Amino acid sequence: MDKHPERIGRKLIYTGAVVNVYQDQIKLADGRVENWDFVEHPMGAACVVPITEDGQIIMVRQYRPALDRYTLELPAGKRDSLTEDTLITAKRELGEETGYTTDNWQKLISLKTTVAFCNEFIDVYLARDVVRTKGQDLDPDEDIEIKEYSPDWLREEIYSGRIQDAKTVAGIMSYLAM
Amino acid sequence: MDKHPERIGRKLIYTGAVVNVYQDQIKLADGRVENWDFVEHPMGAACVVPITEDGQIIMVRQYRPALDRYTLELPAGKRDSLTEDTLITAKRELGEETGYTTDNWQKLISLKTTVAFCNEFIDVYLARDVVRTKGQDLDPDEDIEIKEYSPDWLREEIYSGRIQDAKTVAGIMSYLAM
Repeated sequence: MDKHPERIGRKLIYTGAVVNVYQDQIKLADGRVENWDFVEHPMGAACVVPITEDGQIIMVRQYRPALDRYTLELPAGKRDSLTEDTLITAKRELGEETGYTTDNWQKLISLKTTVAFCNEFIDVYLARDVVRTKGQDLDPDEDIEIKEYSPDWLREEIYSGRIQDAKTVAGIMSYLAM
Repeated sequence: MDKHPERIGRKLIYTGAVVNVYQDQIKLADGRVENWDFVEHPMGAACVVPITEDGQIIMVRQYRPALDRYTLELPAGKRDSLTEDTLITAKRELGEETGYTTDNWQKLISLKTTVAFCNEFIDVYLARDVVRTKGQDLDPDEDIEIKEYSPDWLREEIYSGRIQDAKTVAGIMSYLAM
């Protein structure tokens, strides 16, 4: 394990709305050089597993153009700046997307969403004893329906393949495995 | 929820080694139009939670240029073709990356790695009673170290934030929550 793939060049291909795309030149351990894709997600994100006092989990349903379908997900969103603490992001996104709040926060897990070609990270927080204190406060590009579900029902939705969003699967299962 | 973000245009930006990048025009529910990034991962992938007869989990350690670090991950890899059954992919990748095999396979979960801008999917399989029958058979761009770990140790590595790869967190926690 002394030698590993090493980046020897990088070309910017595209500056996007949320990601930047690069073509990297990677020198392999055997000396050969290949072009690899690198998708930079500078902002990173936070995600919340919101648990009510009676143990239900608050989920959001929204349309995802990248998949051409509605998905059921944990509340989540990007950081507002490159220096924002993801706990701040998590509190904001929970409030905006669901109207729920709490003072009972705990870091659950940290995720790298797809390590082969992207550096996007998502910090996932557990928010216990959430209560609804206001309405949603959505961004103009958000159209989000919220609902409470039992952990057992969500677990079956995941094992049956009807919930597939990776941060949601990782967050709920990490909560259930505690 | 009658109206949702709708794609009204798509421009190909980049044809990469594993992903293609598009700039989409998305019409929001309120009528405004925005440019969104779309990263297409046509191939998809499979991942394996390999369990030995005494309950240890086989993990792979490798260098990830996208993160500039070594990661501890479940064995995984891309499909060989757009029509390959991911169970075939899973069996091949387990054999090539670790040299372990088994006849005891079960579908565990399906993942979409990052739904806001990418369509990559990973099917995760549980492989029980794996035994080492041969050496690794790595691709030239792979330099992979394999080792067995206890589920309890891996759980703590995840909760402490030292294991962050999303497919690995989702796969191990989904196994532990069964």
